[in-house]
Amino acid sequence: MSELMIERNPEPYNAEPVPGALIERFLTPQNLFYVRSHGPVPDLPADHRIEVGGISVGECSISIAELKARFPVRTVTAVLQCAGNRRTDLQQVGKTSGDPWDIGAIGNAEWTGVRLADLLDAVGASDASNLFVCFTGADEVDVEGEVAPFGVSIAMTKARAPDVLLAWAMNGEPLASEHGAPLRLVVPGYAGVRSAKWLTRIEVKDTPSEAPIQAHDYKLFPADVTSETADWTQGLTINAMPLNAAICSPGSGESLPAGKVRIEGYAVAYERDVSRVEVSLNGGRDWRQADFSDDPDGQWSWQRWSLDAELPKGRQHLVVRAFDDAGQGQPELPDTMWNFAGYLCTAWHHVHVLVE
Amino acid sequence: MSELMIERNPEPYNAEPVPGALIERFLTPQNLFYVRSHGPVPDLPADHRIEVGGISVGECSISIAELKARFPVRTVTAVLQCAGNRRTDLQQVGKTSGDPWDIGAIGNAEWTGVRLADLLDAVGASDASNLFVCFTGADEVDVEGEVAPFGVSIAMTKARAPDVLLAWAMNGEPLASEHGAPLRLVVPGYAGVRSAKWLTRIEVKDTPSEAPIQAHDYKLFPADVTSETADWTQGLTINAMPLNAAICSPGSGESLPAGKVRIEGYAVAYERDVSRVEVSLNGGRDWRQADFSDDPDGQWSWQRWSLDAELPKGRQHLVVRAFDDAGQGQPELPDTMWNFAGYLCTAWHHVHVLVE
Repeated sequence: MSELMIERNPEPYNAEPVPGALIERFLTPQNLFYVRSHGPVPDLPADHRIEVGGISVGECSISIAELKARFPVRTVTAVLQCAGNRRTDLQQVGKTSGDPWDIGAIGNAEWTGVRLADLLDAVGASDASNLFVCFTGADEVDVEGEVAPFGVSIAMTKARAPDVLLAWAMNGEPLASEHGAPLRLVVPGYAGVRSAKWLTRIEVKDTPSEAPIQAHDYKLFPADVTSETADWTQGLTINAMPLNAAICSPGSGESLPAGKVRIEGYAVAYERDVSRVEVSLNGGRDWRQADFSDDPDGQWSWQRWSLDAELPKGRQHLVVRAFDDAGQGQPELPDTMWNFAGYLCTAWHHVHVLVE
Repeated sequence: MSELMIERNPEPYNAEPVPGALIERFLTPQNLFYVRSHGPVPDLPADHRIEVGGISVGECSISIAELKARFPVRTVTAVLQCAGNRRTDLQQVGKTSGDPWDIGAIGNAEWTGVRLADLLDAVGASDASNLFVCFTGADEVDVEGEVAPFGVSIAMTKARAPDVLLAWAMNGEPLASEHGAPLRLVVPGYAGVRSAKWLTRIEVKDTPSEAPIQAHDYKLFPADVTSETADWTQGLTINAMPLNAAICSPGSGESLPAGKVRIEGYAVAYERDVSRVEVSLNGGRDWRQADFSDDPDGQWSWQRWSLDAELPKGRQHLVVRAFDDAGQGQPELPDTMWNFAGYLCTAWHHVHVLVE
């Protein structure tokens, strides 16, 4: 484990990089990419076979070597972000369940694999929009005492989207075990949880997965719902992810010498573009326009940004907010989006530093 | 002109319905649909011909009768909303240019016409994604002293989208003159300005329209840019529209009898879904979940919502906010999105009433 990783939970192993390391490269190295495990990390052989079945699909199995041989190999650059990223900001408002993620439960990688759509076509799956594709992982998950294999699903329409991959490589390297080796799903634009790791089975169904992760977890509820009162047939299944931005450098609590400082971070709008990023050096009273550091090709990457500023001595309060290409801005306060499971914190991000 | 329309400008004629009338029906009647003219309303004959030309297109013209005869007739239900809707909320923060729209510069209609894509195919237009389709209207527009025919453009990719129509009817009736008779463009999901009325010419170009409406208007700038300092080659061209919601009934300033009241309004998220609408009866301290009144088929409609509540006597402060299906909420304050032209106010909407 890299020294730049902060462990959020030893078992299951969950960790995120320190913010300054997160933002150093456009593509996040595997050993700095956040790890969100829901159970012990499985150890699967390279010749592991994935079962495929379900509605109008003849039960079969396929190996990674067969996927590579039968289908065109594709590369997609995409952010994966945990639905609980920035949960600590919501925990300032009130207690939530879940690991205390700071701003690092996100990473941007180049994924290599084959289109899920190509496999679905090859096995004769229907493309009817009322169907779901369900994924099972080799990891065993305990959701509120219910132990079952990890399972999630996505709607057939999304499953057929050209950038949804069955991936065996990340930034040109074989997937590390903690990132889903030997084969994982990558669903660009969706919360990380849908990108199932350690795939063991792919099944076409006419209902979403009934596995606890899909059915009783990763849903967004209003603030007046608690874990005790939640009706899991209600709530918003967290798929598409909202606009977000964070300051990665300087880090909160850092001491800096007076003078010039480069403020850096990320912003992400997924299927939309980030149209601008604004940084305040005085707690939100005035705003400056940050510059984009990247000019990504595809639509699923993050945009790193930077602003060069001079900070006077004393305690300084930095804030970032982004706007997307529909002119949509981020809500200011975490209070306005608090939910008991601590999902989807998109409030303006604040960093306090001491300039000496 | 309906007595339920509030004139915002006599010349060019701009008007919006009173909020309570706006929300009575899922489909907004033509005579209650906001009118945003940029010049005098043209009077074109029914046999008016529209020129078609540009890159790799043989110059030609087509009548509405020919469009109906040659291409399949399509119907799309879609909101059109002025980019300046709710400008009055931004004007509470600071002066802006533009007409003082309240919450009524929006309407939801069923549009009938043919796909723009079908016409583009028929005239041999390329579908290259670096091209633009430019539209000219019969209306003469004065933008900061520059008088020219109304002109806008959309990217070829959007122009080819199946729901973009050349429309001659609204809610099953021929287009009224103020809504663009005999033929207008309808670009679902985009600011109303792109849905050019009184079409005279359609042209494929490799640049956006150079008409003043496209080039020097309808762009979103940060708060520190003024009309004097604006660099019109910069700024965000307002196309896709953001999440929004408003309370239409009761209206602001109304007096109500104590007891039960139904609070009603609209919410719109365009290519996303509105996942929930929350109403506060006490200025934003507590929130209740509103019910959706509509279950629209397509993705371009608004969603009307309602909440039955009991209001105590006294001055009461109602607020609405919506969330989309990516969990994205609206920013709370208009201060955080103010811009000199008063575009895209998406702040929580407030209504003050007196309960007697």
